[in-house]
Amino acid sequence: MVFSYDKLFEFTKSILTAIGCPDAGAQEAASVLLSADLRGIDSHGVARLIGYVRLYEKGRINPNPKLSITYETPSTAVMDGDAALGLISGPEAMRLALKKAQEVGSGWVAVKNSNHFGIAGYHTMMALDQDCIGIAMTNASPLVAPTFSKERLLGTNPISVAIPSGDEPPFVLDMATTTAANGKLEILQRKNLSAPIGWVQDQDGNPITNANGVKEGGALLPLGGDREHGSHKGYGLGAVVDILSAVLSGANYGPWAPPFVAFLDPVDDPVGQGLGHFFGAMRIDGFRPAEEFKTHMDNWLRRFRNADTVTGQDQVLVPGDPEREMERDRRENGIPLLEPVARDLQSLADKYEIAFS
Amino acid sequence: MVFSYDKLFEFTKSILTAIGCPDAGAQEAASVLLSADLRGIDSHGVARLIGYVRLYEKGRINPNPKLSITYETPSTAVMDGDAALGLISGPEAMRLALKKAQEVGSGWVAVKNSNHFGIAGYHTMMALDQDCIGIAMTNASPLVAPTFSKERLLGTNPISVAIPSGDEPPFVLDMATTTAANGKLEILQRKNLSAPIGWVQDQDGNPITNANGVKEGGALLPLGGDREHGSHKGYGLGAVVDILSAVLSGANYGPWAPPFVAFLDPVDDPVGQGLGHFFGAMRIDGFRPAEEFKTHMDNWLRRFRNADTVTGQDQVLVPGDPEREMERDRRENGIPLLEPVARDLQSLADKYEIAFS
Repeated sequence: MVFSYDKLFEFTKSILTAIGCPDAGAQEAASVLLSADLRGIDSHGVARLIGYVRLYEKGRINPNPKLSITYETPSTAVMDGDAALGLISGPEAMRLALKKAQEVGSGWVAVKNSNHFGIAGYHTMMALDQDCIGIAMTNASPLVAPTFSKERLLGTNPISVAIPSGDEPPFVLDMATTTAANGKLEILQRKNLSAPIGWVQDQDGNPITNANGVKEGGALLPLGGDREHGSHKGYGLGAVVDILSAVLSGANYGPWAPPFVAFLDPVDDPVGQGLGHFFGAMRIDGFRPAEEFKTHMDNWLRRFRNADTVTGQDQVLVPGDPEREMERDRRENGIPLLEPVARDLQSLADKYEIAFS
Repeated sequence: MVFSYDKLFEFTKSILTAIGCPDAGAQEAASVLLSADLRGIDSHGVARLIGYVRLYEKGRINPNPKLSITYETPSTAVMDGDAALGLISGPEAMRLALKKAQEVGSGWVAVKNSNHFGIAGYHTMMALDQDCIGIAMTNASPLVAPTFSKERLLGTNPISVAIPSGDEPPFVLDMATTTAANGKLEILQRKNLSAPIGWVQDQDGNPITNANGVKEGGALLPLGGDREHGSHKGYGLGAVVDILSAVLSGANYGPWAPPFVAFLDPVDDPVGQGLGHFFGAMRIDGFRPAEEFKTHMDNWLRRFRNADTVTGQDQVLVPGDPEREMERDRRENGIPLLEPVARDLQSLADKYEIAFS
């Protein structure tokens, strides 16, 4: 089943409006959510709309939040998300970081009391046309075991960095700090396939190939997969994301981070408020003239894109290239949805009396 | 052969003074270099002293540099290292980042025209007693092949993040963005052992276990090891380090980065000046009161250090724990040097007429 971007966008916006988001918020949140579908990160897109609605129904999301700055310096701030959709608090925090970057060279904004913010890359790409480098990260529900741990203490905690260029398409890194994102496991589960060793461990901490291992009490593994292949580095990066997003902001960190699924309740001994994010913006010309930087960045990008490839590969890719290609395709040919996702959307359509198909 | 810290420190300082470093510079550079030996990162410590001296003899290092700020905003700057030892320009740039953090909440300093800066963790730990989060990274000689590339286009490009705590020992991440640092391969080479698959590829891009593979025209692999295990993420992180350190500062980036070994000449078509680094400092109380943060950080650290372990492991470690343990041991019991390293130091002693053993 393939749907046009415009159709999914309007539907998403209508649902968000129906649960009480003001028009501008619904508009922006739909843009953030749908950017995941366009870029091929299907796990973070419209497939999650019903999850957000369920959190709203549980009283865990405030559709019309009053975002406030609890503390700030010229280049830093903490924003209280007032239980917002991260799809709404995220872009607002990024705008604050960009404003500070325009004023004093860089801006860094930690957000507490928020919820999942869609794909990190949406937020960082907001920096590109302001000639800024954008940085975004977020903590998430604990599904990942640190190296040597049986327990799940971290989320898949993504990091995104977007860097402007001149004539070449820009550099947009957007990565989970795990070997594989949870969405990739879900694909294997649906196809009844095994996962490579290094993605998952069982509840005793043994490496396994069972793609359902996380659901059965196991854990996702940090980038690296095992100690010999540097999993302590992936764990370290995921930990930095957790600390900057949540300890610095006053959100729940580590195993206290609230679950995304509404059928699991948050812990009853929270150490902060909601989920946390962290955003950064640095003005290129706070370092060197932007045109000079972009000329060199184009040179960098061309050198990497034109590198000699190993046998069987056509091209060395730069972070963001596959997603850009996917977006071009899906804007033209539409966004395919799996049947269960389309069914979820239909159930939302029925409940809120909004036309879907 | 085991040497006391004080002896190696005084010797290192004397050699650096002999090649023309002013007293304060020699003192600080020796501290940076020896901090690697203390923390067990032997590849980056006094073993490299002869390498720095050879670069000086080739005219590639200026022992008495005039460091200058080529451009700045309240929270950002570019520093021209004037061909300094990174051991000297690094701490100076970190001090500038910390000063800006005190003034406007955060400081971000990119350095060009520099050389290797020792371990990244030395620089970030400078932030701890100022209640700041410290960040440091550097590009390095190209030894690493991006995912799908036969060519070596990146260095092992480390990232360090140091985060203050209260009563618990702090969080100090210091990691190469490769599966394994080059120093680990050198250990295998000396013992005539194989490397695990995922560390190295041969000159055609095939995964190999030959620990000498990089010397024979192959490449180190990004964290992740192969595409299925997320090597595109390690490559993406190494690329971010390269761009922030070198494209943003005006240093040589990617395959143009100058080699550390003096017997290889830099490329004859440089795209910038020397190597590049990138430093950051964020004041904790630019976000929330420092004591409040430290209380939560202690809680974070205790929760992770006390997590249930997988069978066969005593403890879940926090980044920086093994290095701290090593430092405690080596301060007390001395620093062991391999025979070839001691021989190199003796040859420096002979050449510069300084007592060594």
